[in-house]
Amino acid sequence: MSDGASGLDSRDPLVRFRSRFVGAGTPLVYFDGNSLGRPVARTADRLAEFVRHDWGERLIRGWDEGWFDLALTLGDRLGRVCLGAAPGQTAFGDSTTVLLYKLVRAAVAARPGRSEIVIDRDNFPTDRYVAQGIAAELGLTVRWVEVDTSAGITADQLAEAVGEQTALVMHSLVAYRSAWLADAETLTGIAHAAGALVLWDLSHSAGVVPTELDAWDVDLAVGCSYKYLNGGPGSPAFLYVAERHLAELTQPIQGWLGATEPFLMGPTYTPTEGIRRFHSGTPPVIGMLAIEDMLDLIEEAGIDAVREKSVALTSYAVELADELLAPLGVELASPRDPARRGGHVTLRHPKMQEVTAALWARDVIPDYRDPEGLRIGLSPLSTSFEEVHAGMVAVREELERVAG
Amino acid sequence: MSDGASGLDSRDPLVRFRSRFVGAGTPLVYFDGNSLGRPVARTADRLAEFVRHDWGERLIRGWDEGWFDLALTLGDRLGRVCLGAAPGQTAFGDSTTVLLYKLVRAAVAARPGRSEIVIDRDNFPTDRYVAQGIAAELGLTVRWVEVDTSAGITADQLAEAVGEQTALVMHSLVAYRSAWLADAETLTGIAHAAGALVLWDLSHSAGVVPTELDAWDVDLAVGCSYKYLNGGPGSPAFLYVAERHLAELTQPIQGWLGATEPFLMGPTYTPTEGIRRFHSGTPPVIGMLAIEDMLDLIEEAGIDAVREKSVALTSYAVELADELLAPLGVELASPRDPARRGGHVTLRHPKMQEVTAALWARDVIPDYRDPEGLRIGLSPLSTSFEEVHAGMVAVREELERVAG
Repeated sequence: MSDGASGLDSRDPLVRFRSRFVGAGTPLVYFDGNSLGRPVARTADRLAEFVRHDWGERLIRGWDEGWFDLALTLGDRLGRVCLGAAPGQTAFGDSTTVLLYKLVRAAVAARPGRSEIVIDRDNFPTDRYVAQGIAAELGLTVRWVEVDTSAGITADQLAEAVGEQTALVMHSLVAYRSAWLADAETLTGIAHAAGALVLWDLSHSAGVVPTELDAWDVDLAVGCSYKYLNGGPGSPAFLYVAERHLAELTQPIQGWLGATEPFLMGPTYTPTEGIRRFHSGTPPVIGMLAIEDMLDLIEEAGIDAVREKSVALTSYAVELADELLAPLGVELASPRDPARRGGHVTLRHPKMQEVTAALWARDVIPDYRDPEGLRIGLSPLSTSFEEVHAGMVAVREELERVAG
Repeated sequence: MSDGASGLDSRDPLVRFRSRFVGAGTPLVYFDGNSLGRPVARTADRLAEFVRHDWGERLIRGWDEGWFDLALTLGDRLGRVCLGAAPGQTAFGDSTTVLLYKLVRAAVAARPGRSEIVIDRDNFPTDRYVAQGIAAELGLTVRWVEVDTSAGITADQLAEAVGEQTALVMHSLVAYRSAWLADAETLTGIAHAAGALVLWDLSHSAGVVPTELDAWDVDLAVGCSYKYLNGGPGSPAFLYVAERHLAELTQPIQGWLGATEPFLMGPTYTPTEGIRRFHSGTPPVIGMLAIEDMLDLIEEAGIDAVREKSVALTSYAVELADELLAPLGVELASPRDPARRGGHVTLRHPKMQEVTAALWARDVIPDYRDPEGLRIGLSPLSTSFEEVHAGMVAVREELERVAG
């Protein structure tokens, strides 16, 4: 136990939230809250109650009593609590990949005559694969921006990449490997100056890094809910479409629940008004329930306080890495400046894949990402400074053993 | 209470299953099991246990301990218990609409030079909208087959519609309004004779009408899981791709979990082998859990016994309609021949929309579908003959009141 860590915990204004998660406080060290957040304790009962009462008693009537709108009401709540998005622009549904597909198709259709999608080479694979697939099917070109894998795209790099052929710029707000936190407002402005639309992937930031999508003039965004929104394995994704684009943009997966008057079951598809036009099939109600519990906690804490604790946790992890791991040859592969760093920290060493396996065997659970990266994801409300300390000591022990 | 109904219940070999659903046995009459099946009682505890133990304790490790394969293992089980599909051809994920989009795109790409999609005018809206959307984006033609809204497409009608321009034929095995049960084997053969592929929508049949997808030489199928598979509101859909097409067909929504070696996070998308190439994003694990409980019950009962009870229930409903409702001008809008009828019965009368509202107000829950159709969906394992009798008496009372 470290006096430093216990002191940090005793001064943590959010320390009370930890007991509201399943398993927080057990000896297991969880360094993967950026991949799958811990369940909120309330979620187990919420799901059982939903089955017995909402689904079991209300049955099909539940659709008229909130389920039909849940993807939108929960989206609005996410927009207010975490994203800086006014109501009517955010909705849950599908997976991040499917929503990326819908929005990239919508965006390039809204910029006819422009032939390029700009994306950085280090963006998350699914984002790159969607861009490549759509470019191939529509005869467009993907313009790759090469970035340092320990960082992300800079303003200069983007300014050089965009031009009159750019239909869309796609980036992750927080890079999945390095945790590089992009300057979204500046980059959005650069893309707009070239006449392009911008799509931000918020998967690694939603729930931990506050955004101001409306104020930053963002066009489009997507994100997943099983990381810092604690929705559970495979919970639905969300999308944001700025109000000014809602009438103009349409998406290609034409389903009954995105149509006007779905229960008229009419002969042809006409997209309904508003964000609901990005629906295709039936909204995944059970999959959305856990997200409500996490939004309750984030709202109670305040997203700015969550970010403040996140910065404190990652800064502490960096400090311990300098002290315990740098002497063993470990390099920081994340920004040292907390203002440019999201909620995780990546540490590089040639032996990190073996170290990760050894850590898992002793109930210390980080993630591994090529190249040579130990990725430490610190979900602020469920992680203590003691846990960070215990985990970093374990990394040192296993690295000493493995590098031997 | 009807002596006929209680006698039928006492002789029902599946009567023991009813108590294994939430709310079955209460006075509420549920005639909408074809729209949202009742929860299996076990599901409430299963979900809570999943949150506390699987997700809460195993955390990210759960992905390697079954979650990553669940969409496929559960698909294989559905194939074996309900669909007549050998392993490796069925997977859960996405919504029915998104899977239709993937498979229609895959199918027309596999029939280059052919310009038509054949679909009947009475197919479910989302199927029609997907066909229309893809035809518009690819410059294909939708060839509509006009059908009697009380029936479905016949062999003669299909033979007349298909030809050397037909890339794909799309139909529902059981029509959502009439419950018409198509002769899938014959129709598939007719499409194949013209060189076309066939896609069957099993949404209104999976779990209640057995199929033999492999034996019938079906190419492609989709279906939803919240009807007779009791997966809960918005639970994931499933798709089937015949083994002989798996190497040849690819889908356009290129995501990391459909790629070879997703965790290498490589530079370009290469579709992985097998049915997993139809994945895009992260599989919806929590959304799939309830389906397991219903498959347990269907497997225990046997799908043929489920179908036998389904036929007995719908035949009893038709008998009561003849006796109680025909004198008030109600017409049967479903096939009288049980061999051509799925799991629901539609009754037509100009006042049925009002009758539906009146029935809901007294806890009798059917569905309404234009034109003038009261739709009675009888989920075999959770519905008793007494319930059918009580509901049909209520329909008569409300129709007498409404029609004055």
